[in-house]
Amino acid sequence: MKATQTMLNMTEEELTQVVLNRYENTPDVRLREILHSLIHHAHAFVRDVRLTEDEWLKGVLYLTSVGQICDDKRQEMILLSDNLGISMLVNLISANVAEGATESTVVGPFYVPDTEEKAWGESIQQLETDEMPMQVCGSVVDLEGNGIPHAKMEVWQTNTNGMYDIQDDQQPVNNLRGWYRANEQGQFLIRTVRPVCYSIPTDGPVGVLLAATDRHPWRPAHLHVKITAPGYKTLITHIFDEDDPYLDSDVVFAVKHSLTRKFERIESAVQDSQNDLPAPYFELRNDFVLEPLEQH
Amino acid sequence: MKATQTMLNMTEEELTQVVLNRYENTPDVRLREILHSLIHHAHAFVRDVRLTEDEWLKGVLYLTSVGQICDDKRQEMILLSDNLGISMLVNLISANVAEGATESTVVGPFYVPDTEEKAWGESIQQLETDEMPMQVCGSVVDLEGNGIPHAKMEVWQTNTNGMYDIQDDQQPVNNLRGWYRANEQGQFLIRTVRPVCYSIPTDGPVGVLLAATDRHPWRPAHLHVKITAPGYKTLITHIFDEDDPYLDSDVVFAVKHSLTRKFERIESAVQDSQNDLPAPYFELRNDFVLEPLEQH
Repeated sequence: MKATQTMLNMTEEELTQVVLNRYENTPDVRLREILHSLIHHAHAFVRDVRLTEDEWLKGVLYLTSVGQICDDKRQEMILLSDNLGISMLVNLISANVAEGATESTVVGPFYVPDTEEKAWGESIQQLETDEMPMQVCGSVVDLEGNGIPHAKMEVWQTNTNGMYDIQDDQQPVNNLRGWYRANEQGQFLIRTVRPVCYSIPTDGPVGVLLAATDRHPWRPAHLHVKITAPGYKTLITHIFDEDDPYLDSDVVFAVKHSLTRKFERIESAVQDSQNDLPAPYFELRNDFVLEPLEQH
Repeated sequence: MKATQTMLNMTEEELTQVVLNRYENTPDVRLREILHSLIHHAHAFVRDVRLTEDEWLKGVLYLTSVGQICDDKRQEMILLSDNLGISMLVNLISANVAEGATESTVVGPFYVPDTEEKAWGESIQQLETDEMPMQVCGSVVDLEGNGIPHAKMEVWQTNTNGMYDIQDDQQPVNNLRGWYRANEQGQFLIRTVRPVCYSIPTDGPVGVLLAATDRHPWRPAHLHVKITAPGYKTLITHIFDEDDPYLDSDVVFAVKHSLTRKFERIESAVQDSQNDLPAPYFELRNDFVLEPLEQH
């Protein structure tokens, strides 16, 4: 047996260099940098594990299936990135926040950009349900604690069956998602139902990966929030239930300590001319602190 | 500004370790090894280039689009792997052949497993064409040069317009592909048209990559061959035209020196009771040398 003779007697390492050289004319400097590192690491991975042709083909077909199951409502490639900790790593790299600002976390695969505006205290739960309501109240403020008027707050969460509307034919469109406008003082009042811990979808390629790696598919209970306001950095984050049993083993690695909150059980009803809330209910109080956009 | 405080005060490196730990229970040892290296290198890539959230999303959507354009006839994920030199690296790793055996190269995205059997000297070109015919003749032999009887030889190539049948509505199904059975002495006679250099498909995500990186999309002229015979290792290879101008810059890095051959122009017609061949035509003479399967 002898090593393969290739064009120009290429070794494995030489092939990598040939490929890198072939991408050297990439006009965009940043794209060139990214591709250089991607090729370097992809080749190092293949060499490190001595990937066989059968394994390569399985990997190619796996990635293909991840792309194929995506549609306008399902984004399995984000879910795969989340499950490999890649999304959270990107978040950590981007997430050097000013002291005192609210931390961000992953957007996840279930964000929908165009939803409906909700009135002050209106619920995003469109269905009749026996589940406990929850109200979320507080202010959107700047680093000095001053209210940011009219900040736009997009929120989304699963139903009590653990599914987002876009996963579930039984829910109306935009159930448990919508956006609120903070008032002149930056205050908001969101109504929903208490979030539950839930399984990410396991009926696709990511489910196959979880089963093959003996990992549970659970995420701790949380509400997704995206806040935009002119002059401030957009904040994409979750607020987690600090009593959730999956807080330390979130399948997508997205928990940050600063984003956990007590979901308080309240025993006395709210009586309000517009927004009655029968007891018992849960209440989550939280201020969101936005950073100013950098000055140029 | 201060670094982000995360659950358990995770740094970027600690996150990678947490993710790796979470995959430690993978029952299949080889899968665990592969995922460990994949996560390690994927995270190292993200950290090395300080990937931004926008860049991450572009990458996710790019990979999604690669999967989405695939169908039963198009395999863009293989094409992407080919273009990043990953397929060829996998080939080099697997391709320690015995001295004297014919070298392998990438299978490429255009292989079709179920095609039609061709008779001795029957052409795989089903269309009338002005292009020059080519015959490919030789033997399938073992390491000692003995003919391997009845080896199955699958062949495929583009039409003279540079497109495989599965890319081109103008070609009949299985045009320029099919399989031959070598005779009792291992000899074969394949008829086709002279292969041309051709552009890989640039109307999909891989075309976007080539344009963004200022790379040409050309492959040197070649015939694909896959040979199977009981007791021998399956050989998947190309035979390249040694006069092709793209031999040193094959877009998918698949050329090996030992796989280049002279496509000889022959000026005298073949007169044969069954298989006339008018002059001029091209002739490619090549023996394919198979390795025995390893004994266990």
